Amino acid sequence: MRLHLNENTAGCSPAVIEALRQLGRPEAGLYPEYEDARQAVAQHFRVPPDYVLLTNGLDEGILAACAAAFRDRAGGVPETVGVAPAFDMYETCTTALGGRMVSVALPPDFEHSTEALLEAMTPATRAVFLANPHNPSGVPLPLARLSHLARAIAPVMLFVDEAYADFNGETLIDPDVFDEVPSLLVGRTFSKAYGLAGLRIGAVLGSPGALGPLRKVVPPYSLNAFATVALPVAIADHAYRDWYISQARESRAMLANACARLELQTWPSAANFVLVRVGPSIARVITALRAKGIRVRDRSSEPGCEFCIRITAGVVADTRQVVTALEEAVCAARP
Amino acid sequence: MRLHLNENTAGCSPAVIEALRQLGRPEAGLYPEYEDARQAVAQHFRVPPDYVLLTNGLDEGILAACAAAFRDRAGGVPETVGVAPAFDMYETCTTALGGRMVSVALPPDFEHSTEALLEAMTPATRAVFLANPHNPSGVPLPLARLSHLARAIAPVMLFVDEAYADFNGETLIDPDVFDEVPSLLVGRTFSKAYGLAGLRIGAVLGSPGALGPLRKVVPPYSLNAFATVALPVAIADHAYRDWYISQARESRAMLANACARLELQTWPSAANFVLVRVGPSIARVITALRAKGIRVRDRSSEPGCEFCIRITAGVVADTRQVVTALEEAVCAARP
Repeated sequence: MRLHLNENTAGCSPAVIEALRQLGRPEAGLYPEYEDARQAVAQHFRVPPDYVLLTNGLDEGILAACAAAFRDRAGGVPETVGVAPAFDMYETCTTALGGRMVSVALPPDFEHSTEALLEAMTPATRAVFLANPHNPSGVPLPLARLSHLARAIAPVMLFVDEAYADFNGETLIDPDVFDEVPSLLVGRTFSKAYGLAGLRIGAVLGSPGALGPLRKVVPPYSLNAFATVALPVAIADHAYRDWYISQARESRAMLANACARLELQTWPSAANFVLVRVGPSIARVITALRAKGIRVRDRSSEPGCEFCIRITAGVVADTRQVVTALEEAVCAARP
Repeated sequence: MRLHLNENTAGCSPAVIEALRQLGRPEAGLYPEYEDARQAVAQHFRVPPDYVLLTNGLDEGILAACAAAFRDRAGGVPETVGVAPAFDMYETCTTALGGRMVSVALPPDFEHSTEALLEAMTPATRAVFLANPHNPSGVPLPLARLSHLARAIAPVMLFVDEAYADFNGETLIDPDVFDEVPSLLVGRTFSKAYGLAGLRIGAVLGSPGALGPLRKVVPPYSLNAFATVALPVAIADHAYRDWYISQARESRAMLANACARLELQTWPSAANFVLVRVGPSIARVITALRAKGIRVRDRSSEPGCEFCIRITAGVVADTRQVVTALEEAVCAARP
């Protein structure tokens, strides 16, 4: 059981694989056409198509946002601001492009304050990166706080990474807001709820003007032909997506309840994972889970995550086994 | 007939599609593992695996090379040097990342001189981009001239784009040369001879130290799971690749001979395409070909390419039809 990368533990919709098996030698051999995929994503998010930039996974979207923000370097080494702990691609992309990331340590509840972020900004700040829900805690942020922040820092870019927003149901995506605050960009992925991680499909949404510099960075054939065929089919299969989201929600509640019984700290997650403070026996617990074929993510070296593992909340039947294994591992490791 | 993008007109190997049809919901849903693909590419090019960086098409490799070269901007706006005409991604990536491209106009035979490139360099030059064989003419360059140039400009990066080298059979790839001249990078693609354009697979080869900064730019899951499965199968099917390369070579000879009969200028192409100076009737010829379902690429607006179209040389049976259609179109357009 791969529960360390927050993938969809059920895989993609059966309809997607059915569609991919229809593809033949010409489709593999020709450059992809992805207008249909872009239209499907635009309709899904209820924005005009020119508010959508499809990317080779959201990682490419983060890189493109960074590159666009760093394009003009008249002010010296460009900076980004974020929180710690966080998804590591914000800092990876910042430094890969010659910038420097300033990270604000989060309080124990993992809810950042707008003030702390504003204080971390300097004249060299080109972008602020935040995930909602937060990763690795799953803690959601109030949308109003994020849109307030976007306005407060404009014209500095606010990139809100909504990789896990499908499991929350809340989004900042709104063409009126994008028009009003063009420095706001929202990132999405089809790797999680839609189970398309292997096909690499992300999207950045924002005003057409704001997406222009990102479009220059993203190559014309960034999505592959299999992804462009899979995407409209996956989006159309509402039943599969809704089933998976309800499984993930039930699983995260089961994990949180089990941890409460075991007196292990968790945080209120709105994502498809739960952060668990296992305590000083963390290494033994991870080893015991691994011995049962369950991989979880050790986050203990990150700020605020001492003794913590992150467990993907996927299919409920799997989660039942995980709960049993976790109970056994934790009890066995207790003195 | 799509003869405007230099795709493989036969598509991928049948063995590749067979392998892709075995993939199921888990493979689509999980992040790709691409160690096998990297090993296959390393063996194919006879280099150790750490001399290989797989990229989402070669476009991503060009972008990553640019980003790595531009990382330190102490010297102001970074510059790249290339030739005109050329593949447009060198300039697109340069400007997308805030740099400026200086292009040296090629002489009528499209063979650049090392001296002209050296003269175009300034203290702000961070990289030189050249394609071998040249695009859009297909003219090959002597390898010795390129390795001499790499040494002459070191430590400034020389990026040699060998996108069409499979049709030529010559390559600069050599781990000893990479060790000696770490500023030399070679780009390859599996879109052309291997017919995998839809799957997006490129590679940058160079010394491990030189590839380090590019690896930071390329996300950890840049290749999709279908590409990682297709690649080793495609590389192993020597018979298919060799058949296609011989088809393309025969086709380019047929196109060149037909143009000679029609008294249209062409250039000695080592790639899977031929540049043809159709003359002032170019618009009528393109329209007449299009009416027969044949798409070719109008390059007439580019320097040195007045009245020129570029035609992909693919499967011989297709080329026979193209030759007939071209003869009819050119003769009909003559006064």
